[in-house]
Amino acid sequence: MTDALRDLKNVLGEVADLRAANSVLSWDEQTYMPPGGAPGRAIVLSTLSRLAHERFVDDRIGELLDHLEPEMSGADLDSDDARLLSVTRRVYEKDRKVPSQWVAEFSLETSLAQQDWQKARATADFTLFRPHLEKIVGLRRQYAGFFAPYDSVYDPLLDDFEPGMKTATVRAIFDALRPQQVELVRAIAAKGNVVDDRPLHKAFDEKKQWDFGMEIIRRFGYDLEHGRQDRSAHPFTTDFWTGDVRITTRLRPKYLPTGMFGSFHEAGHALYGQGIPARFDRTLLASRLSSTVHESQSRTWENLVGRSRAFWKAFYPRLREIFPRQLGEVSLEAFYRAINKVGPSLIRTDADEATYNLHIMLRFELELALMEGSLAVADLPEAWNARMQEYLGITPPHDGDGVLQDIHWSVGAFGYFPTYALGNLLSAQLWEAAEKEIPDLTKRIARKDFSGLLEWLRTRVHQFGGKYEAVELIRRATGHPLSPEAYVRYLRGKFGEIYKL
Amino acid sequence: MTDALRDLKNVLGEVADLRAANSVLSWDEQTYMPPGGAPGRAIVLSTLSRLAHERFVDDRIGELLDHLEPEMSGADLDSDDARLLSVTRRVYEKDRKVPSQWVAEFSLETSLAQQDWQKARATADFTLFRPHLEKIVGLRRQYAGFFAPYDSVYDPLLDDFEPGMKTATVRAIFDALRPQQVELVRAIAAKGNVVDDRPLHKAFDEKKQWDFGMEIIRRFGYDLEHGRQDRSAHPFTTDFWTGDVRITTRLRPKYLPTGMFGSFHEAGHALYGQGIPARFDRTLLASRLSSTVHESQSRTWENLVGRSRAFWKAFYPRLREIFPRQLGEVSLEAFYRAINKVGPSLIRTDADEATYNLHIMLRFELELALMEGSLAVADLPEAWNARMQEYLGITPPHDGDGVLQDIHWSVGAFGYFPTYALGNLLSAQLWEAAEKEIPDLTKRIARKDFSGLLEWLRTRVHQFGGKYEAVELIRRATGHPLSPEAYVRYLRGKFGEIYKL
Repeated sequence: MTDALRDLKNVLGEVADLRAANSVLSWDEQTYMPPGGAPGRAIVLSTLSRLAHERFVDDRIGELLDHLEPEMSGADLDSDDARLLSVTRRVYEKDRKVPSQWVAEFSLETSLAQQDWQKARATADFTLFRPHLEKIVGLRRQYAGFFAPYDSVYDPLLDDFEPGMKTATVRAIFDALRPQQVELVRAIAAKGNVVDDRPLHKAFDEKKQWDFGMEIIRRFGYDLEHGRQDRSAHPFTTDFWTGDVRITTRLRPKYLPTGMFGSFHEAGHALYGQGIPARFDRTLLASRLSSTVHESQSRTWENLVGRSRAFWKAFYPRLREIFPRQLGEVSLEAFYRAINKVGPSLIRTDADEATYNLHIMLRFELELALMEGSLAVADLPEAWNARMQEYLGITPPHDGDGVLQDIHWSVGAFGYFPTYALGNLLSAQLWEAAEKEIPDLTKRIARKDFSGLLEWLRTRVHQFGGKYEAVELIRRATGHPLSPEAYVRYLRGKFGEIYKL
Repeated sequence: MTDALRDLKNVLGEVADLRAANSVLSWDEQTYMPPGGAPGRAIVLSTLSRLAHERFVDDRIGELLDHLEPEMSGADLDSDDARLLSVTRRVYEKDRKVPSQWVAEFSLETSLAQQDWQKARATADFTLFRPHLEKIVGLRRQYAGFFAPYDSVYDPLLDDFEPGMKTATVRAIFDALRPQQVELVRAIAAKGNVVDDRPLHKAFDEKKQWDFGMEIIRRFGYDLEHGRQDRSAHPFTTDFWTGDVRITTRLRPKYLPTGMFGSFHEAGHALYGQGIPARFDRTLLASRLSSTVHESQSRTWENLVGRSRAFWKAFYPRLREIFPRQLGEVSLEAFYRAINKVGPSLIRTDADEATYNLHIMLRFELELALMEGSLAVADLPEAWNARMQEYLGITPPHDGDGVLQDIHWSVGAFGYFPTYALGNLLSAQLWEAAEKEIPDLTKRIARKDFSGLLEWLRTRVHQFGGKYEAVELIRRATGHPLSPEAYVRYLRGKFGEIYKL
């Protein structure tokens, strides 16, 4: 390693250390911190964010990059070092445009907003959260302004979560996807109420729910020597280091799927985190370059595995053993249909696969309108409810189950939601590719064997860490561009069979 | 506030933020971190420590102090700002002598050492811990060297925990105390085996132990909106902010006192932390200037309250209700005597009040010998066992219950132990003063009313935060110097009555 490369890695390492500290403090804030810790925590997080930003945008990193980039020309462009320089340059140029003072203010505001969002959600009182959201939308519009000119004010935000992705591309994909999803949902609705999910709405002991979830995610391959699961208001995954990748879930005492699929989903993220090579630690290559790729992993384990017939063939006997009173009379087939019941739902994270993307499109359109200034925060609850009615035919009983349901806006993560839908598309594309190379994939899952799938994902996705954005990753894994066809095929196949379409 | 003072507070605030982050990461390391997180955590902590040190010893702080100090001459020397300048100057001059590189190395080494200490303690294998301890002793000797010349190589270490305190003073206090404690212990031993503590050595459900401890510390006044209790290998208190002061305890399934008195002890620390005014946040005045004062608070609640007859008059019925099978046949008097049984014990944190200081003197002498170079780490277990035999008449069955029992050496806290004994002395002095001003103090406790005591401590101790070291604090609270008489009076009174001396 040249001296300059070592120097660069040292400075990037320090920045990574500050960000890791920030992540630990955020994890603590959402899991164990007592309420009285909130004001202080907001300030400490703000200081850490600012210091990390100041160190990262320092001229010295630019000089080191200037010095190192010519050395790399002619070298293997896929080598770790070449990708490190390229990814670092990209984020460096972007972050240089953002003043450290903005970073500090944004961090402070979003910490405080999260606290009030939790209260607002619990009491279904949007007015508590409204002033925070107005400030956050203002800060995010200001942020976009640092990157003017742009085609869409939403582009710089989207780009933070999916590098290179444009709002126009998302819109085009969504426009292609929407009619097909709507058609599918209508066809299902036309069949009437043929699937019964009442067995899921019973009292399920929380300790038993927890233990079953833990049993499954361990089976998936989630390594508890290098991770742990806790409870939080909104489930999330966070990685401080490839050796410490944690997840959270939330349990509902009278609805089984929330905790279970929440755990599967976050474990999918965590398997990715634990699969990133330790040599990437303390560099940007160990972090989340592409949220789309990340969501493809969570949705794979939650849905393509966790809501599949093969999976439940293997594990339903066990679940029935744990909940004999609730599920003793429910057949495997009835249970499989129940967890895949398609219908309008209020809460995105509980939505079935056929309607899930409609929730995402709703948020994408509202975010875009807020950023473009065509929608005021004050009018957001009404706009939310109107669109819920239009897309899903239902209106939330209160804002807690409506506009306040997700944590994302309180943490300022505008631009994130589209990657959930893109992640769905990617997961189906990857699954088709995996099935081609592991023809007995489904049979293996029915035998409780996840090792083939995990190894395939390790090889095709995890081992690259943050080296490639979604478009490049899927090209390498399948030779195809990112596109909706595989996902639509998957939905039609699965729900065509369940609903006899 | 002048601009310079505001500037100073801003920089000190940043340093405090980095240290608060460090504390959160250390808390997590000892409570919830999965094993795989250890190597990364050590590096992150090291970076945070180094950055905090670099920022604190920056010339800018010296310039601001130079500028501000003359402004303060003539001002009230007890004002917050005057004390802030004085305390900051003191620590600044001291920290300036320590290279940031040493701070980083020390932090890294002690993080790694803690992990191996936990393993070594669990397996009673000193060889696992020995190389770490050798390195830490070397680093601590090097640290002392930064402050040469000194009267004792131990002075600069002691001074970190009790500012201004000298090794010679500690030695003089211990020399005065030792014969009196030894005489008391001998007189008690001569009475034969008149106290029976077998009722404490039974199976006590851990959940019930936990709940009882929580019930009591809430009664003391520990505020769970601004704190929480968790489990860890070694109990500790940590404060990130006056609004977030946390404690830990450890439970033993077959011995009641460990968890219970552990909780009372740490709650005593935490009541101090929660009593420090919020206006001191982000300055050195919110942190632990004097470990002696801190230990006086923990020992007050653990012993003067928690092991008193008045306390158990109030709470023994409740404890017996929780553990009817174990304590149903045990009278209040028998229980009171059992928890105050005097005898040689292996584990310091479980030691009775009459022998406790002997444990401290043992460690003080060993630490001193290690620092002076007259004792090698390799010979430490043998020296430990020899001195245990000499002072307490017992030899540990293995190093896990001997030389490996305490966390302090693994975190490099050489110089801390004496403050436990000094804290005992201070607690008795404060108690005598409190009794003078609240004549019915004991009766109030017997009525489950701790508010008078807490308020007195808030006024005489807590409200000053880190403004005064122990010697000054006791002078202000009682007009007397720090001395052993009150403690010896307390021991003689209490144990004279129990053992009819």
